Amino acid sequence: MIEVAVFGAGRIGKIHAANVARHPQAKLKYVVDTHAPSAEALADELGAKVVSVEEALNDPAIGAVVIGSSTDTHADLILRSAAAGKAIFCEKPVDLDVQRARECEAAVNNAGVVCMVGFQRRFDPTFAALKARLEAGEIGEAEMLVITSRDPSPPPVSYIERSGGVFKDMLIHDFDIFRWILGGEAVSVYATGGSLGFPEVAAAGDITQAVVTIRTKSGSLCQINTSRRAAYGYDQRFEVLGSAGMLQCGNHRPSEVVQSDASGVHADKPEHFFLQRYREAYRLELAHFFETLQSGGTFRTTIADGVAAQRLADAASESLKSGQAIRF
Amino acid sequence: MIEVAVFGAGRIGKIHAANVARHPQAKLKYVVDTHAPSAEALADELGAKVVSVEEALNDPAIGAVVIGSSTDTHADLILRSAAAGKAIFCEKPVDLDVQRARECEAAVNNAGVVCMVGFQRRFDPTFAALKARLEAGEIGEAEMLVITSRDPSPPPVSYIERSGGVFKDMLIHDFDIFRWILGGEAVSVYATGGSLGFPEVAAAGDITQAVVTIRTKSGSLCQINTSRRAAYGYDQRFEVLGSAGMLQCGNHRPSEVVQSDASGVHADKPEHFFLQRYREAYRLELAHFFETLQSGGTFRTTIADGVAAQRLADAASESLKSGQAIRF
Amino acid sequence: MIEVAVFGAGRIGKIHAANVARHPQAKLKYVVDTHAPSAEALADELGAKVVSVEEALNDPAIGAVVIGSSTDTHADLILRSAAAGKAIFCEKPVDLDVQRARECEAAVNNAGVVCMVGFQRRFDPTFAALKARLEAGEIGEAEMLVITSRDPSPPPVSYIERSGGVFKDMLIHDFDIFRWILGGEAVSVYATGGSLGFPEVAAAGDITQAVVTIRTKSGSLCQINTSRRAAYGYDQRFEVLGSAGMLQCGNHRPSEVVQSDASGVHADKPEHFFLQRYREAYRLELAHFFETLQSGGTFRTTIADGVAAQRLADAASESLKSGQAIRF
Amino acid sequence: MIEVAVFGAGRIGKIHAANVARHPQAKLKYVVDTHAPSAEALADELGAKVVSVEEALNDPAIGAVVIGSSTDTHADLILRSAAAGKAIFCEKPVDLDVQRARECEAAVNNAGVVCMVGFQRRFDPTFAALKARLEAGEIGEAEMLVITSRDPSPPPVSYIERSGGVFKDMLIHDFDIFRWILGGEAVSVYATGGSLGFPEVAAAGDITQAVVTIRTKSGSLCQINTSRRAAYGYDQRFEVLGSAGMLQCGNHRPSEVVQSDASGVHADKPEHFFLQRYREAYRLELAHFFETLQSGGTFRTTIADGVAAQRLADAASESLKSGQAIRF
Repeated sequence: MIEVAVFGAGRIGKIHAANVARHPQAKLKYVVDTHAPSAEALADELGAKVVSVEEALNDPAIGAVVIGSSTDTHADLILRSAAAGKAIFCEKPVDLDVQRARECEAAVNNAGVVCMVGFQRRFDPTFAALKARLEAGEIGEAEMLVITSRDPSPPPVSYIERSGGVFKDMLIHDFDIFRWILGGEAVSVYATGGSLGFPEVAAAGDITQAVVTIRTKSGSLCQINTSRRAAYGYDQRFEVLGSAGMLQCGNHRPSEVVQSDASGVHADKPEHFFLQRYREAYRLELAHFFETLQSGGTFRTTIADGVAAQRLADAASESLKSGQAIRF
Repeated sequence: MIEVAVFGAGRIGKIHAANVARHPQAKLKYVVDTHAPSAEALADELGAKVVSVEEALNDPAIGAVVIGSSTDTHADLILRSAAAGKAIFCEKPVDLDVQRARECEAAVNNAGVVCMVGFQRRFDPTFAALKARLEAGEIGEAEMLVITSRDPSPPPVSYIERSGGVFKDMLIHDFDIFRWILGGEAVSVYATGGSLGFPEVAAAGDITQAVVTIRTKSGSLCQINTSRRAAYGYDQRFEVLGSAGMLQCGNHRPSEVVQSDASGVHADKPEHFFLQRYREAYRLELAHFFETLQSGGTFRTTIADGVAAQRLADAASESLKSGQAIRF
Repeated sequence: MIEVAVFGAGRIGKIHAANVARHPQAKLKYVVDTHAPSAEALADELGAKVVSVEEALNDPAIGAVVIGSSTDTHADLILRSAAAGKAIFCEKPVDLDVQRARECEAAVNNAGVVCMVGFQRRFDPTFAALKARLEAGEIGEAEMLVITSRDPSPPPVSYIERSGGVFKDMLIHDFDIFRWILGGEAVSVYATGGSLGFPEVAAAGDITQAVVTIRTKSGSLCQINTSRRAAYGYDQRFEVLGSAGMLQCGNHRPSEVVQSDASGVHADKPEHFFLQRYREAYRLELAHFFETLQSGGTFRTTIADGVAAQRLADAASESLKSGQAIRF
Repeated sequence: MIEVAVFGAGRIGKIHAANVARHPQAKLKYVVDTHAPSAEALADELGAKVVSVEEALNDPAIGAVVIGSSTDTHADLILRSAAAGKAIFCEKPVDLDVQRARECEAAVNNAGVVCMVGFQRRFDPTFAALKARLEAGEIGEAEMLVITSRDPSPPPVSYIERSGGVFKDMLIHDFDIFRWILGGEAVSVYATGGSLGFPEVAAAGDITQAVVTIRTKSGSLCQINTSRRAAYGYDQRFEVLGSAGMLQCGNHRPSEVVQSDASGVHADKPEHFFLQRYREAYRLELAHFFETLQSGGTFRTTIADGVAAQRLADAASESLKSGQAIRF
């Protein structure tokens, strides 16, 4: 049984805390949040105790921490948790600044602790099934990856202003998908985009539509298209073209009801947003974290993946600004 | 908080016990099973205590019982639980003998206790979404229902011999779907079938393929087709034709991966079997049971539904034997 | 080159005449219709000549006739064409009276002429592909057939009154599909139905919704469901369950456009009605007729198929009336 | 009735000639091909006469010419046909050299003749239905276009060497789709690619996989992905994301049969290649040509569209070479 402290009692912290509490090999001991009422409510509901960061990290019984607090606290908590010798699960991103993220990576490595980064999509049953088939050679060698990644609607401008921009905030997951699926190192990144329909986002220095092209050393190609607004909901698809076929991931839907009437044949929109779409993935990534901690196996993500995805996001931002492809 | 005793620590008992244990408004206090090791293991895992039926029913703190033990114990447990004034959740069927099932119904009514019957399909997200749209009038008046209900492969003959036959064992759920969706009373039932490929089932007095036709007083029609063997897995679909359109429930799949290669375009088979397909339905039916117990609302199923479905199963068996339609 | 006379210049006659005119091995010589303006217009358009039945049958250059005139003329034209030694293609049905149809069958056999019956669905690319796979053993032995056959809306009552009823008018095609796919002889037929929403059809002695169950000697089962009103259009599906899998025929759609918006994910309704849905099948059945006439091969349908389908329609009508299954 | 000469009796010439011959408002008078046996065979089959280019263009009865001969003859035939005052339908491309294509455009304009370019995809029922809905405003303003354009397998290297490269040979259609759907002028084009699995194509100076990004003045974005090898066949999809939803074009399949068995659920591969996939589009584009010639309406494509698509292909080639985005 691994005793766990969860940092963060907000939207994502709650999900992780509940998954810790329900996992047979884990015990949720502490909830930590600077906003006391949130921490208390969550701890109450799940039978945990509210403590400070110090108290949590000083408790030798704590074997692992789950960092689900606000983005600007991630790096500090990683550094302190590593120093305390705790196994770390940290929500993406490591830090909006790639240099700072690298410092965290070094600290984690020096301390010899585990640090999984929350790229939950790698645990999604559909995405993981695709990956398994790809590795089994069912479509030969992967040659091309097309990722469609669209949100139902943009967050408030106040959020966007602190988000690091669409590449770090939203496409960070897709950059990780690229690395996970094509497996190669990028040699060039090209990005362009705009903010059609959202002048207030442009005013905040960000964009709402973007397209990215990545080329790997081996010559495989990746195209990503994204928008912060898809009127029909959360659109999360990708497809891999291989030398012997294609693998596609379709959206998940709340139900399999199809209605046929005088106006056509109608199916459900995709699952509403990431909390619904990746509910199972959030559960499975923590299960993997705890099980791998106990079994001593290989973690499906590490802090190095977090850093690598961020480098791609930085390159995309730079390409958007310069209008030219960035070479590595 | 409702304290609960679960009767049965087998396949279905385990599912119910886990759902009780996880429900925020319920507390799993007792596990009861004549097979002590199963009872102990389940109780251990979920933090409950093993007791006898008597002890469970004599404990005034127990507010509800969940009957998930073998079919031949259902009626007795319903009668005793009703006498003890407990709220009852009972797996289908009430009893293979409809007369005995009616005695249970009378006892439940006399005792003034709740008795939900485990027609979990009514709680499946896809089926419930269809039902909601039908009630919202989205396809006008329901005129015709076509149910496809197929198992991946037949159970052992030893099971079939004690099962009550395909109509009571397998189609009981579909008879309930008929009543739930078309809502009318049957005026005729016609059934025919056979045991192609399974002479051992024929030797045991049962069939593996069957088709049933039901006509209601209002003139709406229902066709059910079933087989104990669908090589592609568990096939659970139904469609309703209404005066203004059609609603269809498709199968659920483990993933949304589609593979295209030289031999075609390939999607997943349906979810393997009922434990996978109806996992969420099992959770939701118990949640409904506990929430309705507390809110005092209307239960989605009652023991009367159990009795009514069994009458249809009896009529189908009789029709199969006589070769003629049975009139009510 | 086969010279051809087409009887009938109405809706279906026009389709056949155009397919004759376009076929490289056939030459449309004559159009015959009691309604002179229709005959003239069609003959003009396709470069043919208007003549009487006598003239057409007396022309020794005419190698084949295509009968697409009104139902009540079919038997007479078959008898006269057989007597004249012409190869015959006749639209379904042979005659609404099965006794009269049998006389035609005998006459055709005595004359030693070909008589294909227009069960065009056997030539539909989707249906024929299913049949080919079934025969290739891809799903093992066929055990169960479920046919969905629905029209967009009922014809006028004046048509229904002369139609012979829903079983002979509409389901005759489905009875033929049953024979073609399951291949066995029926041992029992059960039918029931009603006329929900169409009291004027009930007043005319017919029904608008019907369900039929057929059992074959070998124990395979067939369920047919039909309605003269499907608000979403012409619904033509069937599925075969075999010992090793299932084959399904889906509807065809005018386009493969899918629209996703705030209200859902929307695809096209099926092709509007039989003229659209079976356009290619009508072309292919005549191509088969001419090619088989020249090659001396086996015709995919014969007048015996027409008679056999009608016997099933008669049995269904009788079952509907008596409320009981009809045994053969 | 428009009398027509068809130049070219090869694969595409045959299709056009047959569509001319079958069109009620056109008469195929001449077939022209330097390869006499091909010309004779085609003319024989369709009841036309073999003549030289001169004879065809000198015949004042010829109202229109259809150019379906080899690419290197297009420009010359356009210039001569324009000089002869004939209405012109020309297969794509106008010429591999954009400067030469512009000379043709100027000549056509000076002569005041019609010159449609064979972008048949604009006439495909699925693509045209999408376009109609887009123009009807069903998804608001178009913001992003994703095009998937893949061939089943590469042509021989001998073909590739004379093809002008993948952008002019294959993606020319997709550049036209971009212009047709997004409607705006390109301000930047970025392309990259490679020849994974086909070193012989690399040796011939071409590539087999490519991705292209186009940005328009208004800020809308287009991504195209292509491969000369899709093991599952001819893949022709595109999707448009608009401010109020998405429209997608799916592939067409030879049949709507779905097979479910122990290994999964299997549908047909897409239609084999362009001759199958766009059979109806080829018919409809010539029908549009003849009908618009007679009605005096607006032609759906002009030689200007041919030139514009080629400019995009040139820009993509240049970007591929330089590794940088090309600005307009």
